Amino acid sequence: MPQKVRIALDAMGGDVGASVVIPGAAISLQRHPDSEFLLYGDSKQIDEQLANYPALKKASRVIHTDVTVSMHDKPSQALRRGRKTSSMWLAIDAVKKGEAHVAVSAGNTGALMAMARFHLHTMQGIDRPAIAGVWPTARGDSVVLDLGATIGGDAHHLVALAVMGSAMASVLLNRERPTVGLLNIGVEEIKGHEEIREAAELLRASQLNYIGFVEGDGIGQGAADVIVSEGFSGNIALKAAEGTARQMADFLRQAMASSWLSRIGYLFARSAFKALRDKLDPNKSNGGVLLGLKGVVVKSHGGISAEGFAYAVDVGYEMVRCDLLTKINQMLNRDGSALAQAHTAPEDVS
Amino acid sequence: MPQKVRIALDAMGGDVGASVVIPGAAISLQRHPDSEFLLYGDSKQIDEQLANYPALKKASRVIHTDVTVSMHDKPSQALRRGRKTSSMWLAIDAVKKGEAHVAVSAGNTGALMAMARFHLHTMQGIDRPAIAGVWPTARGDSVVLDLGATIGGDAHHLVALAVMGSAMASVLLNRERPTVGLLNIGVEEIKGHEEIREAAELLRASQLNYIGFVEGDGIGQGAADVIVSEGFSGNIALKAAEGTARQMADFLRQAMASSWLSRIGYLFARSAFKALRDKLDPNKSNGGVLLGLKGVVVKSHGGISAEGFAYAVDVGYEMVRCDLLTKINQMLNRDGSALAQAHTAPEDVS
Repeated sequence: MPQKVRIALDAMGGDVGASVVIPGAAISLQRHPDSEFLLYGDSKQIDEQLANYPALKKASRVIHTDVTVSMHDKPSQALRRGRKTSSMWLAIDAVKKGEAHVAVSAGNTGALMAMARFHLHTMQGIDRPAIAGVWPTARGDSVVLDLGATIGGDAHHLVALAVMGSAMASVLLNRERPTVGLLNIGVEEIKGHEEIREAAELLRASQLNYIGFVEGDGIGQGAADVIVSEGFSGNIALKAAEGTARQMADFLRQAMASSWLSRIGYLFARSAFKALRDKLDPNKSNGGVLLGLKGVVVKSHGGISAEGFAYAVDVGYEMVRCDLLTKINQMLNRDGSALAQAHTAPEDVS
Repeated sequence: MPQKVRIALDAMGGDVGASVVIPGAAISLQRHPDSEFLLYGDSKQIDEQLANYPALKKASRVIHTDVTVSMHDKPSQALRRGRKTSSMWLAIDAVKKGEAHVAVSAGNTGALMAMARFHLHTMQGIDRPAIAGVWPTARGDSVVLDLGATIGGDAHHLVALAVMGSAMASVLLNRERPTVGLLNIGVEEIKGHEEIREAAELLRASQLNYIGFVEGDGIGQGAADVIVSEGFSGNIALKAAEGTARQMADFLRQAMASSWLSRIGYLFARSAFKALRDKLDPNKSNGGVLLGLKGVVVKSHGGISAEGFAYAVDVGYEMVRCDLLTKINQMLNRDGSALAQAHTAPEDVS
């Protein structure tokens, strides 16, 4: 375990760049004083911000670059224009060279995936990377993946996601044998895509703690510690849930402001509302972890506050402290047989 | 337009059967006194319930059958065992024969789809049916389909869904040119499955009011009047949103009961909470309409209250009153060129 956790930040990523990234890093540093930072981007903008955060300034080194990946660049454009020069690339490069333990960016997701995959490469046994997030449920947190890194995928891909998700849940949520569910549209055996049924067979035969299919409403119920889906449906589930939460919070606000009686009620119940707001704070579930790469990269939402970015930095910190990569490698080795079997699944499964 | 709306009910469908279906029908009858009912199922159970609802009894005819489709039957089993004899089949058969304008069942979704498709057949130009639902959004209601009738589908299928969904939105939500969006995991052109991009091309060239891709959180924002997705992702989105809404309602209840101050606050704000509860009542969005068949069939949730089942009956009533089938046929004819084009899409689109 490293003495200090060194975090490489793409200081220009996201809709607003340094003005959110630097204050966010300062918040996270308060929570984890054993962090230090490499800050990549326009040194003038970064230094301006750092002037307000002396503790962060002391714990940071600024590496100047003029090149920024835009939120609108296609992955191929970003690779062409920003390779070896952009703040996003340099943060990933620091992980590649061992100068940082983890890279965090609020930049364009497609570009970040493409650069991270191109430069760090996937782990042995993993074809395609995934984005994993922590989902607050009625029974504590669950790990949900893939939230949109890659679209579609065969049984092998789903089993690989299950292995990586289990590794993340075991270290992050501290569960010895995290339960694993496959996202599907019915719990009956007969439903779902062919590859999901094949993956179910393979997972049942594996050493993972597979519990069966989980429907969309099962995620929030905490039906499993790890929810596995290919990236399209995983992203749809995440966004639909986020949208509903926001919509309900708006309805609640409107209802509480609708009459003087309800406003008085709000005053009495203020601390309950505050607890509710804290519980539902979308900032707190910020920070998607790119899994399956030879290095840890965390994706923050682009349009986020400093507080929200700080949570993404926290996630990066925790992934290093709990030694995520080693755990994933261990489980890939242990469950390698399941993955190898999955590779030939179409022939093996009747 | 029919003088009376005649509704065929599968009185044995759902987790509890007649004890929910009959009281539910009675509630809907109060709201629509110009309804009459054909009640299929165990006449003893039905009559027992009807004794409590004299108005409904007067407006109903009971047709006895011993055969019930179980919630656990696979579609093929249900067809084998329940064809021509089960309460579900007989309700659909009444629509086929023109004895009823619409059939409503809270039974097993797969079985209902299979029987309705087998017996009613799909409309000209439609290969596979869909389930459409009404989704309460920040800007009013939207029509979302497919909620899980069929998995996957090519560009032609997605365009057919767009046409049927537009027809439903135009009559149900009273919008002349309802906006149509395709559910996708990014609003950028580059993202998404190939068939979604192809469907986008075709919809842009069609007479429909196509507005582009909509992400999962756009549904609840009311980004479009009609949201189109193949059935897997559509079902995941629906269930994830329902689950989140339930989870937040639970959190809110806990927060309001957490201290004596918050309980006092609750008393003051009671009517605001009641308005909120009404707004979010999941019963009110009950009733999925099976689209694409030569007849109207409505699917109610299985585990629902009488009030919830009444909403599904209301949906059936409204679909008849607004003459949904004629509207769909009109739009299929008008937009037939888009569908025909879609059939050859893989060759036509570069």
